[in-house]
Amino acid sequence: MEPLIAALTALLGPKHVIVDPPDLAGLARDGRGAFGRPLCAVRPATAALVADALRLCGDFSAVAVPRGAGTGLSGGGCADDSGSQVVILTDGLGGAIEIDAANRTATVGAGVRLSALNAAARDHGLFLPIDLGADPSIGGMIATNTGGARLLLHGDMRRHVRAIEVVLNDGEIVQLGSPLWKDNSALDLKQMFIGAGGTTGIVTGATIALTPLPRHQVTAMLALADARSAVDLLLSAESHFGTLLTAFEGMSMAAVQAALDHVPGLASPFPHAQPGYVAMLELSGNAVCDTATLETALAEWCAPFLQEEGPVIDAVVDSGGRHWAVRHAITEGIRSRGSVIACDIAVRRGDIMACRAHLLTEVAARWPDLAVHDFGHIGDGGLHFNLVWPHQLGAAPTGLAEAVRTCVFDIVVRHYGGSFSAEHGVGPRNIDHYRRLVPTSIQTLSTRITDQFSAPNAILEQG
Amino acid sequence: MEPLIAALTALLGPKHVIVDPPDLAGLARDGRGAFGRPLCAVRPATAALVADALRLCGDFSAVAVPRGAGTGLSGGGCADDSGSQVVILTDGLGGAIEIDAANRTATVGAGVRLSALNAAARDHGLFLPIDLGADPSIGGMIATNTGGARLLLHGDMRRHVRAIEVVLNDGEIVQLGSPLWKDNSALDLKQMFIGAGGTTGIVTGATIALTPLPRHQVTAMLALADARSAVDLLLSAESHFGTLLTAFEGMSMAAVQAALDHVPGLASPFPHAQPGYVAMLELSGNAVCDTATLETALAEWCAPFLQEEGPVIDAVVDSGGRHWAVRHAITEGIRSRGSVIACDIAVRRGDIMACRAHLLTEVAARWPDLAVHDFGHIGDGGLHFNLVWPHQLGAAPTGLAEAVRTCVFDIVVRHYGGSFSAEHGVGPRNIDHYRRLVPTSIQTLSTRITDQFSAPNAILEQG
Repeated sequence: MEPLIAALTALLGPKHVIVDPPDLAGLARDGRGAFGRPLCAVRPATAALVADALRLCGDFSAVAVPRGAGTGLSGGGCADDSGSQVVILTDGLGGAIEIDAANRTATVGAGVRLSALNAAARDHGLFLPIDLGADPSIGGMIATNTGGARLLLHGDMRRHVRAIEVVLNDGEIVQLGSPLWKDNSALDLKQMFIGAGGTTGIVTGATIALTPLPRHQVTAMLALADARSAVDLLLSAESHFGTLLTAFEGMSMAAVQAALDHVPGLASPFPHAQPGYVAMLELSGNAVCDTATLETALAEWCAPFLQEEGPVIDAVVDSGGRHWAVRHAITEGIRSRGSVIACDIAVRRGDIMACRAHLLTEVAARWPDLAVHDFGHIGDGGLHFNLVWPHQLGAAPTGLAEAVRTCVFDIVVRHYGGSFSAEHGVGPRNIDHYRRLVPTSIQTLSTRITDQFSAPNAILEQG
Repeated sequence: MEPLIAALTALLGPKHVIVDPPDLAGLARDGRGAFGRPLCAVRPATAALVADALRLCGDFSAVAVPRGAGTGLSGGGCADDSGSQVVILTDGLGGAIEIDAANRTATVGAGVRLSALNAAARDHGLFLPIDLGADPSIGGMIATNTGGARLLLHGDMRRHVRAIEVVLNDGEIVQLGSPLWKDNSALDLKQMFIGAGGTTGIVTGATIALTPLPRHQVTAMLALADARSAVDLLLSAESHFGTLLTAFEGMSMAAVQAALDHVPGLASPFPHAQPGYVAMLELSGNAVCDTATLETALAEWCAPFLQEEGPVIDAVVDSGGRHWAVRHAITEGIRSRGSVIACDIAVRRGDIMACRAHLLTEVAARWPDLAVHDFGHIGDGGLHFNLVWPHQLGAAPTGLAEAVRTCVFDIVVRHYGGSFSAEHGVGPRNIDHYRRLVPTSIQTLSTRITDQFSAPNAILEQG
């Protein structure tokens, strides 16, 4: 494939075509670890150059794989093992962040990071209310339809995308949607690029809706005797706090302990209690509801649940971000304990604790050496059912991860009508489960649609 | 086409095939007035019968037009003038409303009315937070992607649709989506049926997300010296009230006066002021923010704007629904004054008052006999720029309505990048403007997509 590399170099200049093995190795991994082996990677600076690069790949029958910040978890931003695929880096698609404060929208290049968008929006009292541990690119967030911890009130990335600029695989550049809040003047074609993992085209820019920054945020950590009470507490909090409730998370004590053990100085929320499960909720205030009002309201709401025989054995209220620090340290904490087998599942909210109990029983019976460290989003039925093969047992047996994931996904999809990919997207890491678990009629119809955009054949995901 | 009617009668029984001219005349109109002339109308009671009816229409090369509650405003639920089209009534697709309170979802037949869904949801402290003057069917709301007055916080119908059952034009019945809050396990094909006006298939059932009912609602009517201050007041209210702010509407005094004149007993909010424009905002409370708290907060927020030389000349706070009564009486009030020319437009929020002033000048110069009665949704940039040809001038000149709409839409789309159909959908009433104003590349790509669902050729809309 030397001629393709030469042609890409002629198009973009040698500085923007990456072929050195050490540099390529860094691009052959994502937030989950190593994946694949690209022929090369290119960094076009404009949508027109993305289009030209795609046309060259087409001329040489090479598959192009768009890659954002590389923080994805499903391998979508990585080439496969063939050594023939070209990674298209979108981090050159930056430029000015244009904020229309009156319209509450921002127009950005696909390579702009979430943190950069939020830094610019903050000057206008606005933000994109998607909360994640990682710092992905806007293009990657669109390609994977990012969810996160505030989906309960603020929804997924799809809700916030107003317009996109996209390069179809044949090199056509299309503008879809508009900055308007209301527009039903045509079929909403941009939806076919959101959560599509790059199968329908490469997103090169977008107009994103922004939300007023809350003036106050207060969290509560609740030590529960038993995980089964979490959903009842969620329903009570939703009815009580209405649109002030912006997150309702759940954590196994194993996950919390892993975070506390790993990060020096991280304070345990419950030094004197031994909870069976931990719930965390966040209220976001405004000029009417300040921090003190929210703290009092949380304490009052919680009081009946704290009584003798009540579901809550301890509760701590905070407005200094300490609870999110624990929550966001869980991923790294779990990783420090061993080899992680990750299952990004979702079920209906009322089923979440029954499904969790079902999975705990099944895993304990079949793989007693695995330590479950689950955590996730009770508010939206999403659960990171993550398991650890401990370091002290040496390397995990070959095939263990896929055997466990297959078992978990089968239970989730077939017993509970749930999802094997709640918020991380399909991507190469999940493609076999997609083929196995998604109805054939949907797969066929999806292929018919993606073919209309002259897209590559593989299910890919921007990282 | 007698053989088609006979075949449909054999399939559905004579009771469910409507051929009598007076009954058909009632189905040849929508919320805007008379439109078209159907061959017949059929009322299938199941998705399987919808599929069979569609196959029969296909066998006879007849176009089928889905029709919900008939409250649409773009002619989408009506046959054309050919006398050859078959109206498929979806109001037979009712059945039980299944509410999953823990998941906050409802599964319904497409013929269920918004009011029926909300009556059932209310028992669980939930509702579908889309506010409209009419009472459409859920299927029609999906087909038109209904917006309404609370889009500012709660978004459009698209946001609330979790899953649909749809009959493709070749009679295939497909289930798309799931009740899950988070699911990125496949391309989100259901999006191609939302706001598609029936071009991609007939929605026969859906799973809809519900929202906790607010415990308190307080409104304020603001008499403004000048319409131009409305957007600044919106931005201030958004920053101040955050997620408590659920609507921000705007009304010309002509529109308010038409409502007051038409509905006996409707009280004027400003008996002693002569505002140049009226804004109305709604706050929705919870257990932390009760009615008294919200009323006080509104008064405090408003006080600086009420000072000498301030933009607000009078303000009235209410918690008894009196302000919505005025707002919702506007449509009927305007209709009582003459022949209405309706323009359902949207622009970026910061442009709304400049665009309005531009349109007022243009209309006054070209059609001095027309009386502008505009109102709408300042919070989302949507404006019902409606004009009245007064009764006392007799019948409106032939072609006037389309000349005015063409002029208005050209200004909105070409000067402001706005929309000629903010929330009512394309439909036969707007199809010429669609062909004129939507880029050819988008029309071509849309047709390629709709063809994949074996859909009819016309741009249709469920009413």
